[in-house]
Amino acid sequence: MPKDAEIIAIGSELLTPQNLDTNSLVVTEHLNLLGVDVVTKQVIGDDRARLSEAIRVAVDRSCVVVLIGGLGPTEDDVTREAVADALDLNLVLSLEQESVLISRFRQINRPMAKNNIKQAYLLEGAAAMPNPHGTAPGQFLSTRHGALALLPGPPRELKPMVVNELIPRLKPVLPRRVIRVRTFRITGIGESDLDAMIAPVYKKYQNPATTVLSSPGDLTVILRAQAETEEQADSLLREAGNPIAQLLGDRVYSEKANESLEALVGCLLRKHHANIATAESCTGGLIAARLTELAGSSDFFVAGYVTYTDAQKQDVLGVPKDLIAKHGAVSEPVAAAMAEGARRRTGASYALSATGYAGPDGGTEFNPVGTVYLGIAGPGGTRVVRVRYGGDRYRTRMWATQSALDLLRKTLLKLQF
Amino acid sequence: MPKDAEIIAIGSELLTPQNLDTNSLVVTEHLNLLGVDVVTKQVIGDDRARLSEAIRVAVDRSCVVVLIGGLGPTEDDVTREAVADALDLNLVLSLEQESVLISRFRQINRPMAKNNIKQAYLLEGAAAMPNPHGTAPGQFLSTRHGALALLPGPPRELKPMVVNELIPRLKPVLPRRVIRVRTFRITGIGESDLDAMIAPVYKKYQNPATTVLSSPGDLTVILRAQAETEEQADSLLREAGNPIAQLLGDRVYSEKANESLEALVGCLLRKHHANIATAESCTGGLIAARLTELAGSSDFFVAGYVTYTDAQKQDVLGVPKDLIAKHGAVSEPVAAAMAEGARRRTGASYALSATGYAGPDGGTEFNPVGTVYLGIAGPGGTRVVRVRYGGDRYRTRMWATQSALDLLRKTLLKLQF
Repeated sequence: MPKDAEIIAIGSELLTPQNLDTNSLVVTEHLNLLGVDVVTKQVIGDDRARLSEAIRVAVDRSCVVVLIGGLGPTEDDVTREAVADALDLNLVLSLEQESVLISRFRQINRPMAKNNIKQAYLLEGAAAMPNPHGTAPGQFLSTRHGALALLPGPPRELKPMVVNELIPRLKPVLPRRVIRVRTFRITGIGESDLDAMIAPVYKKYQNPATTVLSSPGDLTVILRAQAETEEQADSLLREAGNPIAQLLGDRVYSEKANESLEALVGCLLRKHHANIATAESCTGGLIAARLTELAGSSDFFVAGYVTYTDAQKQDVLGVPKDLIAKHGAVSEPVAAAMAEGARRRTGASYALSATGYAGPDGGTEFNPVGTVYLGIAGPGGTRVVRVRYGGDRYRTRMWATQSALDLLRKTLLKLQF
Repeated sequence: MPKDAEIIAIGSELLTPQNLDTNSLVVTEHLNLLGVDVVTKQVIGDDRARLSEAIRVAVDRSCVVVLIGGLGPTEDDVTREAVADALDLNLVLSLEQESVLISRFRQINRPMAKNNIKQAYLLEGAAAMPNPHGTAPGQFLSTRHGALALLPGPPRELKPMVVNELIPRLKPVLPRRVIRVRTFRITGIGESDLDAMIAPVYKKYQNPATTVLSSPGDLTVILRAQAETEEQADSLLREAGNPIAQLLGDRVYSEKANESLEALVGCLLRKHHANIATAESCTGGLIAARLTELAGSSDFFVAGYVTYTDAQKQDVLGVPKDLIAKHGAVSEPVAAAMAEGARRRTGASYALSATGYAGPDGGTEFNPVGTVYLGIAGPGGTRVVRVRYGGDRYRTRMWATQSALDLLRKTLLKLQF
């Protein structure tokens, strides 16, 4: 009896030298959490016959088959048709999906092009999986060995559908196993340093299995325990997880899988009845953009200033001209004055500043490219830290943004930095 | 007669949530340059039976089959054996490869573990492709429809082998073809509207083939023509591409594949010896962040203000209190006053503004969630456009950012909007 999964990503653009299928990583991660291994991944172009053949083979040999992409309104989008061919099923217009589609277009105030009606067709026997972020619903179909799912290609649509629709539907189809997860979200340390620190612990365990995910300035450690009961799984997680937690200390900013650093900092600001302003140079608005990414951010975000020129630092933030002349715009005193200026101007409880050389050009002998001064001004005074990042402009800006938010976290929690 | 290629990457680590097969991009790039399309990519774990089955199918249906990885010395490395199973060939110890292997271990001053001898076995009839960067030679085998290649997995071994060994051996096997590409980067239109507009043209052609890539507010249309000569390919691109260009008109902001809208706008500002400031509310710093993403953006970016509160709009941008009281902060007059205020304060040639409801809460009957006013102030006066987007907070902010940059583009190019 097959118990494994396979994934087929669909789209000719995924067969060019420029594009990779990254969606399958998300699907794999969540299937693994259910205790299902992915044993084959394929990428197939917008080719109905070839796709249909691949689907037929996959459904014959695997428990879970996940198709990603090709659900759009255009003629290139052939996934629905290929499944119909492969499994000899009809495509049926769903009146319910049609009305969902119509009301969605009404909501976004756009006329519905005629070809969009394709997206309201479901495979015979399939359940629609709602897509609040796009027009194409997903589809979930029982198969001989398990299930077949059709998911939309855009990552913003796919991710929530995997978590909210696919996984809950798969659970009852799969053999009962309890899987429990413990997640650490971490900042302020690089991936290889983190691994050197915690590998001696996690290497001792096959169960829980440990995974490390990495993006610039942000790491996630996931422990995944399988057992027959929740109690057993939780006990495994405690045994391996507690020593890891102790080693990481306050580098862990959250144990909630979906809590980003900006979300945590937003919560802390609300809890402290505090608010925040930003004064950015090299990060160019990214700190403000991240703080305002959250719904309801106007509760705690007052204003942001992107003062790229010396004149702007003087005019808007009141940084003294002499200070810039003496120390340079990329310096500790200027970072301090920027934060203080933003706090004074807005009356916010806290203000963050960032000034540095993101590169590729610029920099001095003492402050080479990658050097950033991050400041925070608040009721307890002003502090500045100097950081030097490796990597390109993109990574430096991302890391600096992350470090600035972490400075705010540590200040609010009265942690050392 | 098959003329396409497929790629199979081998290794269980490529089926985890952390790892992607990136080697296939290198192989695809070089195959495309030979005029060969990659029509299927697969990732298969270290599973001899499954791999052998996949190889059998691939060799049957494709002209070129490239296997990547699984050539190491361990028991997990099963690629050679899987090919032998699939094509019913023997593996034969090559004395020449054995001596290459022995002298390589002597060269790196390491004892040769016994299992390494596996790497000196060649498939019956295969030519060894030398690997100066590692121990496993590649192998090249003629098949019924063309050729099968076995390449090592480490990228620094794979890349030179593709360029120096695989491609020169494939050339004589393949019919001579040239591939040329034409790219349109487009904004200000949704994917299905775009498709409805241009499908009547591109549907008429199999060659060039058309692909549409989509992200919020940004679309890319790629035409790819195959022919025997460059002149023929270019003529095909003109034939299909010119009517598409005409239909799209000034929605096309660039024909360079890698030129983002912010990069284009940066170029235009430099060309006009102009510079820019931003005054953002709902976009929260994203317009500034995108404009400063480029190296050297200090040439044209002066300052950005994220004025989230009414008080900040008054204080920093000089938006009259009465104006906000009368029209509301999300209104045409306030968007105009924000842009004018930012321009006045910075002395920049142009200023962009954005004020709207990104959601999920907020909005009024007249200005529901998703409504954004975008303003531009410049030497020619001030203009405001009102836009209403569908989708969530993320999409609204991305679309509004894109539209603001497009407003600047159209103003600089004196286009209608």
